[in-house]
Amino acid sequence: MTLEIYWGSGSPFAWRVLLAAELKRIPYESKLLEFSKGDLKTPAFLALNPRGKVPVLRDGDIVLAESMAILAYLDRKVPEPPLFGRTAEDAGRIWAAVSEFESYLRESLTIVMRWVFSDKPRTQEVDDARGRAATELAGLDARLARGPWLVGDAPSAADLAWFPWMRTILRAGVRFEPRAREIGLLSFAADYPNIAAWIGRIEALPGYDRTFPPHWR
Amino acid sequence: MTLEIYWGSGSPFAWRVLLAAELKRIPYESKLLEFSKGDLKTPAFLALNPRGKVPVLRDGDIVLAESMAILAYLDRKVPEPPLFGRTAEDAGRIWAAVSEFESYLRESLTIVMRWVFSDKPRTQEVDDARGRAATELAGLDARLARGPWLVGDAPSAADLAWFPWMRTILRAGVRFEPRAREIGLLSFAADYPNIAAWIGRIEALPGYDRTFPPHWR
Repeated sequence: MTLEIYWGSGSPFAWRVLLAAELKRIPYESKLLEFSKGDLKTPAFLALNPRGKVPVLRDGDIVLAESMAILAYLDRKVPEPPLFGRTAEDAGRIWAAVSEFESYLRESLTIVMRWVFSDKPRTQEVDDARGRAATELAGLDARLARGPWLVGDAPSAADLAWFPWMRTILRAGVRFEPRAREIGLLSFAADYPNIAAWIGRIEALPGYDRTFPPHWR
Repeated sequence: MTLEIYWGSGSPFAWRVLLAAELKRIPYESKLLEFSKGDLKTPAFLALNPRGKVPVLRDGDIVLAESMAILAYLDRKVPEPPLFGRTAEDAGRIWAAVSEFESYLRESLTIVMRWVFSDKPRTQEVDDARGRAATELAGLDARLARGPWLVGDAPSAADLAWFPWMRTILRAGVRFEPRAREIGLLSFAADYPNIAAWIGRIEALPGYDRTFPPHWR
């Protein structure tokens, strides 16, 4: 039975899962839901995930939500190539990189990007978040100056966890140029050249095109 | 060489790591740091973790921060008993439970507990956080009505991830009774009997006593 991935165009969490399936060359049935049509709030979907969020993975009787949990599941089910490293040390470093994104950047970047994609006035909260995000982005750039991937010599769950948000910043510069300029993200690729080069490496992975948000094309 | 765990009394993140080491019966050297003495901001400690946070694990040349990353490391290094299950499905469910805590409860509970441990006035932000936390606590209680542990028939990383915060709510009722009463957490054990019983099961695990925050005694 083919595994099903429920996702939404542009959902960074869902994007992680599509990237993982492609990296492992796991065949899957794409279940693209539309936020604007209420697809995530139908009784059928809420039966899969009561929180009404993507991604959701269905594999026979197994139904799983939460992006990193789905990556952990896929890695146990199809071990090659590994998403969480080949050694205890690599596993630790990969999960640490995931936690650093989740604990120190996700919230601030979400506040900033929500402002960019809106027409709301800029507030102190947005500026504070921008400041915190800048620190973490500089850290990522410095880290990617030392090697092609976040951990070790191959793409891992750490790269997949960070990537969708980084790619979304680039997208903001194209689609929401005035606001991206105002908040200092229009020159993202120039300001963080190592992040930009790493984005390019991920975009060159096989199957990447199938994961690209359809509404961004 | 003995593994070293750097922790701080009452740090819920560090508590996860101590519990994991005890559950796996991994010998470790306890490095108890004192927040109030600035132990986390010394050059020596910042060399281990530039963020100046506990927990940190040192295992020979390997230094790791971020609690869940340390759990993932320990689980690869010493596989028995498993912290992340024996099957892909269990691994997925355990990481999903961890993510649910991190994404849907940690922030709101942190806001509430910070207020309880402070002498600041109650704000709308605190009340909103209290409401969100209540939903998640009810979800945990319902889940623990169905089985003794969060996932499967043995304690896992999911239980260790949630436990320190749940135990801290109980502590608040003892040490900060008026504020715990005001915010409706004084009757936590009665309101969430399945959480309370599960706390008791964790407290009965071998080695638990060594993990208990010294300044709570």
